[in-house]
Amino acid sequence: MKLDASKKILIVGLGLLGGCYAMALKKKGFYVTAITKEPDDLTYALSQGIIDKGSTTVEAELIKEADIIVFALYPHTFIEWIKENGDLIQEGTVITDVTGVKGCLVYEIQALLKPGVEFIAAHPMAGREVSGVRNSDDSIFKEANYIVVPTEANTFGAIELCKELGEILGFARVSVLNPEKHDEMIAFLSQLTHCIAVSLMCANDNPGLVLYTGDSFRDLTRIARINDEMWSELFLSNKDALLKEMEKYRKTFDKLYDCIKHNDREEMRSMMRISTERRGEFNKKS
Amino acid sequence: MKLDASKKILIVGLGLLGGCYAMALKKKGFYVTAITKEPDDLTYALSQGIIDKGSTTVEAELIKEADIIVFALYPHTFIEWIKENGDLIQEGTVITDVTGVKGCLVYEIQALLKPGVEFIAAHPMAGREVSGVRNSDDSIFKEANYIVVPTEANTFGAIELCKELGEILGFARVSVLNPEKHDEMIAFLSQLTHCIAVSLMCANDNPGLVLYTGDSFRDLTRIARINDEMWSELFLSNKDALLKEMEKYRKTFDKLYDCIKHNDREEMRSMMRISTERRGEFNKKS
Repeated sequence: MKLDASKKILIVGLGLLGGCYAMALKKKGFYVTAITKEPDDLTYALSQGIIDKGSTTVEAELIKEADIIVFALYPHTFIEWIKENGDLIQEGTVITDVTGVKGCLVYEIQALLKPGVEFIAAHPMAGREVSGVRNSDDSIFKEANYIVVPTEANTFGAIELCKELGEILGFARVSVLNPEKHDEMIAFLSQLTHCIAVSLMCANDNPGLVLYTGDSFRDLTRIARINDEMWSELFLSNKDALLKEMEKYRKTFDKLYDCIKHNDREEMRSMMRISTERRGEFNKKS
Repeated sequence: MKLDASKKILIVGLGLLGGCYAMALKKKGFYVTAITKEPDDLTYALSQGIIDKGSTTVEAELIKEADIIVFALYPHTFIEWIKENGDLIQEGTVITDVTGVKGCLVYEIQALLKPGVEFIAAHPMAGREVSGVRNSDDSIFKEANYIVVPTEANTFGAIELCKELGEILGFARVSVLNPEKHDEMIAFLSQLTHCIAVSLMCANDNPGLVLYTGDSFRDLTRIARINDEMWSELFLSNKDALLKEMEKYRKTFDKLYDCIKHNDREEMRSMMRISTERRGEFNKKS
């Protein structure tokens, strides 16, 4: 399948990310439809021209006419949806997703689908501190990473199609990782950082501190405003990888604690120099 | 003493912050002199008009003519300087500083000074990830906090003078805290956040991660580029308060770890809601 504007794309779940996908695809001339639960969200998206057509129920016609279906649901809702409605998907349809965890999901979805329907997973690493289609804004893709996450069951064609989708959506970088590497990377770069920010905000309840806050504290805790329903599910869905990264980080934090406690200034300075050097690399690539 | 442009201000230590002080004061019409070790820094500051006059040695004349002396040195260098040269400071001179820790320093300096010389401590909560007078830029004060840190030995006049200095320098907010409250606040808002960023950067040495980094990781680790000489001294100078904040944070992080390990989603969500609510407060005040 070649991804040109003659293709019909169905979005299942019109939240923040589903809305961003629809916006970006409409701008490129695609015919975009949606299935989403809330009537308000559907009315809003139709009135704003974010989608061409949609339904609040699982309409067989919308599924049948779609060339590509993008699932923008929480992990467990995605699996439930496929269990209940997977049979309605036509042979030849390619399905993809936006889920932030992969290992717990990709193999199960692939096993549930009937032959001729291919699921190629993707993770658009973009988001906002607010949710819902009313906050959708496809400019969040501009500086962001899009990761295609194939398994051995995927075809070359579907992987290429999914990469092309990432480019059409306007992502800065498109790359490919297997589910295990993806989950490990996400555990460190995204989930651990959210754990740190949440822990820091919960560690001190002195409201007077707000008065003295500087930029470093604000930057570090920006992500402490968090969608608790979604992130608690993501953390538990990637439990093993996340606990491993938390343990590694805690060990390093404890090492620094011991340096301070035992006045080991040389070891402390050596950690600071490693930190400075590594962080410098992240700046260059940004 | 009233802080008008007839006053002569001597900066001891022309690094990043000393340079910012000189710049801001010169713009307001003050006569600014400097004593600093490196001939290069002095030549640079003179050639750029950042100071009016200066010396690389402790020149009695510069100290004698100054109405106010600002010490922009590392804590231990500040104490050594006063021990060696304190006698040169004239009666009636007010001295202040820029040091990021207070309890370990303020009482000792005050005890070393001869009668008639008053030390009123201050902490300009501003900085950059780079150092030296060549990187000085007084616009860093614009959004920042300036904390005056008096002890019971300070006079009302000196406290007011020091607050006025913070306003003249262009700080967004000027407030007053005693040394103990200051050090507690700094341990949490500034030192703990630097410990976290350094630990996170040292916890994972996979260079490939750079490719997938998003904004949240970059924001959280911005301060991981750190002046190891200065910060290791600051950490050790505020050891007790910092270790206490590290322990509190570590306990909260462990609680979140246990929630994930034992699938306690409700407790996890409750922490996330507390975090979201508290972080919201910090936004409002920003």
